Amino acid sequence: MKVYYAPQSRAVRTVWLLEEIGQPYTLEKFQLGQKEMRGPEYTRINPNGRVPTLVDGDVTLSESTAIAQYLAAKYAPALAPGPQEANFAEFLQWLHYAEGMIMPPINNYVVETILLPPDRRNEEIAMRALKLLNRTLSAAEQHMEGRDFLSGGFTIADTITGHAVIMARRLGADFSPLPNLSSYADRLEARPAFKAAEDV
Amino acid sequence: MKVYYAPQSRAVRTVWLLEEIGQPYTLEKFQLGQKEMRGPEYTRINPNGRVPTLVDGDVTLSESTAIAQYLAAKYAPALAPGPQEANFAEFLQWLHYAEGMIMPPINNYVVETILLPPDRRNEEIAMRALKLLNRTLSAAEQHMEGRDFLSGGFTIADTITGHAVIMARRLGADFSPLPNLSSYADRLEARPAFKAAEDV
Repeated sequence: MKVYYAPQSRAVRTVWLLEEIGQPYTLEKFQLGQKEMRGPEYTRINPNGRVPTLVDGDVTLSESTAIAQYLAAKYAPALAPGPQEANFAEFLQWLHYAEGMIMPPINNYVVETILLPPDRRNEEIAMRALKLLNRTLSAAEQHMEGRDFLSGGFTIADTITGHAVIMARRLGADFSPLPNLSSYADRLEARPAFKAAEDV
Repeated sequence: MKVYYAPQSRAVRTVWLLEEIGQPYTLEKFQLGQKEMRGPEYTRINPNGRVPTLVDGDVTLSESTAIAQYLAAKYAPALAPGPQEANFAEFLQWLHYAEGMIMPPINNYVVETILLPPDRRNEEIAMRALKLLNRTLSAAEQHMEGRDFLSGGFTIADTITGHAVIMARRLGADFSPLPNLSSYADRLEARPAFKAAEDV
């Protein structure tokens, strides 16, 4: 398998999962914002010029949650509870929580604090995004009461929504009222597979 | 089953799917922005105060894509290709494309053109969102060449990402260079179950 990757991006989720399940892969490394991500060679593989993209034989996928569901189904079914399991619905809810709730304000915050040149940044939008981010994190905080992972044991919900929680903390979301999420993020960052995914 | 719904929201996706699979449901109707969506009664059910929320016995779900995967697994497996099917990866890619790619710019466009009071709207952000939206739609346009639905026959990828395409068109994204997506959106809007979901 081949993964098109950039540090500090959703591509960490894919490499993290591959490390968790011990599947070999090769990497094509970009830096976020690098021109080649919009160049003709890469946009033939991913027309949106985003990372991750996973190529596995004749399969090409570029949505990180789709990649996670695909890899779990093919190589590690235990990481994705199925319809016959009691936590199936809960697992799905938290698998999708990242892109549905946490990432939209993260995207906006990153645009207004990192990606745009300083003279084009809008502080009001950045602050509005951070406020919304803190609100979406509170619902996750409530859910994490008494839990080690988002749904039962470690699953792909953790490589996806857990990664979004880690990103939120690193970007400066206020974790002081979020003790459950703080220890959850610590727990995830301590996993050897997560560390390996950041060190590639 | 009970669906917390608002017109012109992601909740249409849930009712549309329930209509497609012929499962009975009751509705709790809101209007987007209605105060009660943030009130203590509803936030006990969905702490983020968003719609849809689906309640099915002791299961409560509020991410529209999670709801779609749950309903398909439980009531209509044919609408969600499984790992043993040739289009499994493609189906996942396009199921997740809505929240990963199309909805983030739609969210921002709606905030800056509809949700904020006129004196607080930022036209530059609205235009940037519309430009990004058109770019994410182009990749879908390319994919839809020669296809009736996103992956094989009609699936929940269509009730999710198809709905995002319909929203994009209604919000004023430029569909003139998107003939494949235009006829795809026409085809979806003509489905009796889609019409029923808008008429509830």
